Amino acid sequence: MMTDLYQLTMMYGYFKHRMGENKAVFDLFYRKSGDTTAHCVTAGLEQAIEYIEQIKFSEDDLAYLRELRLFDEGFIEYLRNFSFTGDVDAMPEGTLVFPNEPIVRVTAPLIQAQLVETALLNIINHQTLIATKAARVCQAAGDGTVLEFGLRRAQGPDAGIYGARAAIIGGCNATSNVYAGMMYGVPPRGTHAHSWVMSFPTELDAFRAYADVFPDGCMLLVDTYDTLGSGVPNAITVFRELREKGYEPVGIRLDSGDLKYLSQEARKMLDAAGFPNAKITASGDLDEELIWDLRAQGAKIDVWGVGTKLITSEGTTALGGVYKLAAEEVSGKMVPRIKISENPAKITNPGVKTVYRIYDKQGYAQADLVALKDEVYIEGEPLTIFDPEHTWKRMTLTDYRMRELLAPIFRNGKRVYELPDVQTIRKTAKAELDTLWDEYKRLHRPQLYKVDLSLPLWNLKRELIEKFRSQQL
Amino acid sequence: MMTDLYQLTMMYGYFKHRMGENKAVFDLFYRKSGDTTAHCVTAGLEQAIEYIEQIKFSEDDLAYLRELRLFDEGFIEYLRNFSFTGDVDAMPEGTLVFPNEPIVRVTAPLIQAQLVETALLNIINHQTLIATKAARVCQAAGDGTVLEFGLRRAQGPDAGIYGARAAIIGGCNATSNVYAGMMYGVPPRGTHAHSWVMSFPTELDAFRAYADVFPDGCMLLVDTYDTLGSGVPNAITVFRELREKGYEPVGIRLDSGDLKYLSQEARKMLDAAGFPNAKITASGDLDEELIWDLRAQGAKIDVWGVGTKLITSEGTTALGGVYKLAAEEVSGKMVPRIKISENPAKITNPGVKTVYRIYDKQGYAQADLVALKDEVYIEGEPLTIFDPEHTWKRMTLTDYRMRELLAPIFRNGKRVYELPDVQTIRKTAKAELDTLWDEYKRLHRPQLYKVDLSLPLWNLKRELIEKFRSQQL
Repeated sequence: MMTDLYQLTMMYGYFKHRMGENKAVFDLFYRKSGDTTAHCVTAGLEQAIEYIEQIKFSEDDLAYLRELRLFDEGFIEYLRNFSFTGDVDAMPEGTLVFPNEPIVRVTAPLIQAQLVETALLNIINHQTLIATKAARVCQAAGDGTVLEFGLRRAQGPDAGIYGARAAIIGGCNATSNVYAGMMYGVPPRGTHAHSWVMSFPTELDAFRAYADVFPDGCMLLVDTYDTLGSGVPNAITVFRELREKGYEPVGIRLDSGDLKYLSQEARKMLDAAGFPNAKITASGDLDEELIWDLRAQGAKIDVWGVGTKLITSEGTTALGGVYKLAAEEVSGKMVPRIKISENPAKITNPGVKTVYRIYDKQGYAQADLVALKDEVYIEGEPLTIFDPEHTWKRMTLTDYRMRELLAPIFRNGKRVYELPDVQTIRKTAKAELDTLWDEYKRLHRPQLYKVDLSLPLWNLKRELIEKFRSQQL
Repeated sequence: MMTDLYQLTMMYGYFKHRMGENKAVFDLFYRKSGDTTAHCVTAGLEQAIEYIEQIKFSEDDLAYLRELRLFDEGFIEYLRNFSFTGDVDAMPEGTLVFPNEPIVRVTAPLIQAQLVETALLNIINHQTLIATKAARVCQAAGDGTVLEFGLRRAQGPDAGIYGARAAIIGGCNATSNVYAGMMYGVPPRGTHAHSWVMSFPTELDAFRAYADVFPDGCMLLVDTYDTLGSGVPNAITVFRELREKGYEPVGIRLDSGDLKYLSQEARKMLDAAGFPNAKITASGDLDEELIWDLRAQGAKIDVWGVGTKLITSEGTTALGGVYKLAAEEVSGKMVPRIKISENPAKITNPGVKTVYRIYDKQGYAQADLVALKDEVYIEGEPLTIFDPEHTWKRMTLTDYRMRELLAPIFRNGKRVYELPDVQTIRKTAKAELDTLWDEYKRLHRPQLYKVDLSLPLWNLKRELIEKFRSQQL
């Protein structure tokens, strides 16, 4: 039932016109990803798979649909027995993806392919958005540790939980979210809030009480009253007491004020007191821009706690993923379909397609090639690629490696794909990002990575557009 | 388990120091709501209540917490028997709220009040954010109908479902989200997508096929190929055929192109063809700004389908709600607590508080008064209110009505509040918005609504700040 009503009205239409069983191919892709980054880190496939495996209409659902007085009993009965019997191919989670590349390709009876649209978009759009934002944040933080702290500001419980999952995939080291920690085998992290400090007569009492309970993991929040005037000195007092008892403190957390100045001063104070290994954690409305600036200004911050702006992907709140019909079986033959638009960027790529990534001999990604699935490429043979808009921009590659990015996920409704765990996906994403030159990853105005169409696909697209235009005249 | 780890570490700290049962009072409030609107439409209380009623640690949860090696068995046992036994007071959903006013006040043993922080913030922050955005969108749409279309772009499944709920509360007429429709008794809406049109040999075939299945609710999407060249003429052909069969069409939907121009031209064509009652629905990256502009330019749009930018609250992706300790029982006496900050806006209001709204004799809201709960106000007695920052700005009211905004929700862990349904809450929100002068509701740079502190609260706050400063010297 996690779907838009129009999927059900369309399904009913296909059902009544006996078109529902016609095989169709849909591509899930995005056209652009916000204003700044072209590449995204794919995430959400696991939950998309779970959704497809669990699609089911309960008797309550069916009773509700009947009440809407839109559908006949034959259709309700069809829904009662619904299960997905199609094929799905998709980029594994953690794969780098660029605009107009199919992230997921669904090949299924039209009526089934239509039903899954909304949930697939919701899940993939959301997690890919957050994984991508996390990758930007982690890139800005360099070797620093990044903690995901956003649950309280996430757009609902799922956004907190799956957002934490995606944040880990994108590179975060840990999360404050206990449930996400449990579900995804990632370390939950956290110490105390201002309210802890306020619950004791003095800040020093509060710090001592915390150290008493967690002598082994003592991280103190030092900005409740006066960071440099009381917070850091009190923390140092408690750290000394801890050391006398044989424990080394973890460090301090700054949550307000100027993080550059405060971290530098706190660092000096901790070093002077003999705690050069005490870490400084910073939090408070951080994002990749501020982290980048603070590091450039020499802030002494080891750990970045990033909340609201990561978990909601502030700045680009949605990945505009779409799900478009690419081909349809007519009388036993797959016929490519195209969506025409006034806006050239919105004209779809027709046909059953796949995506190849081409690497240079150093292992860096050089370009992507969206091609028809049936085309045959032999690695090492000269390969000419060209810009689909400015076709005179072309180059012929000889010394290259190429890799198909889509993997089989479902065949005839059965899952044929083994789900990797979140830490494995995180490593995949890291390795993928490492294949991309810095030029493409720059936070601001990065160089544009090439996503070319194969010649047969380009020809097919041109033919279909011409055919459409000639029909109009 | 939907919580931040630091809630559990703090709870453990309070538990070990035998402070957990000390009664504490926390306020949930926001300091500002984005750049544009000061007021918010509260939403999410129902889900917050459900959360509190259902808090429970399962054996799996406890096993996981044990694995973290942070807590002793006594605490695990405490969690096994955890239930909320405190009081909650809150603004009913649909209430208008302004910065620094407690939306929820929790009075409970410290350890319990701490646990619920993260989930309360997550739920109230999210739904209040979306209800508020929806109110802005609906205000821009004037008498037009607004449909919530955002599930596919929402930040996860919950964001789609609870977001739809909040959107209805904020004023939307319906949603495309079938599950939300079922759960919240709101009408789901939707017809067909471009893929429907592309699945037939011609657009006219597709329209006929749709009209055939839904003769009674025929709304056609006219922009798959060429809106004015083929879409609207084909729709008119099918509408005529429907009328011959005794059915009146619902209308058309525009999803791309210039909505002002296309709607005006389509309106003329529909009128000329004898379908003045056919409605024009528009969709495609709409928000309150664009709707406002399109209406001002005379677009002929009856129904607005609003997706991404509503469901993600584009522009302001999170309500910065916080949850701060306001008072704590020490030796049987409630002691007000304050959080000091360099940033005056971040200094909290201490003590056990409530909120009054003051109305003029016409029924318009005039100002809000945050006061200590024990203060007694008698409606009609002269009331002097003053700006808490610029205290010379003051006025004395005589002919006014006042209303306390917080209602009892839980007493000793038992719910004492009857949950209204979503349509009732929507009416509440509408009535509340009607009490606010247009000046305060302007989409851009509205006049600032007064939120004053009572004199006793203002004095208490000043005393505590002075006391803190004198301790520092």
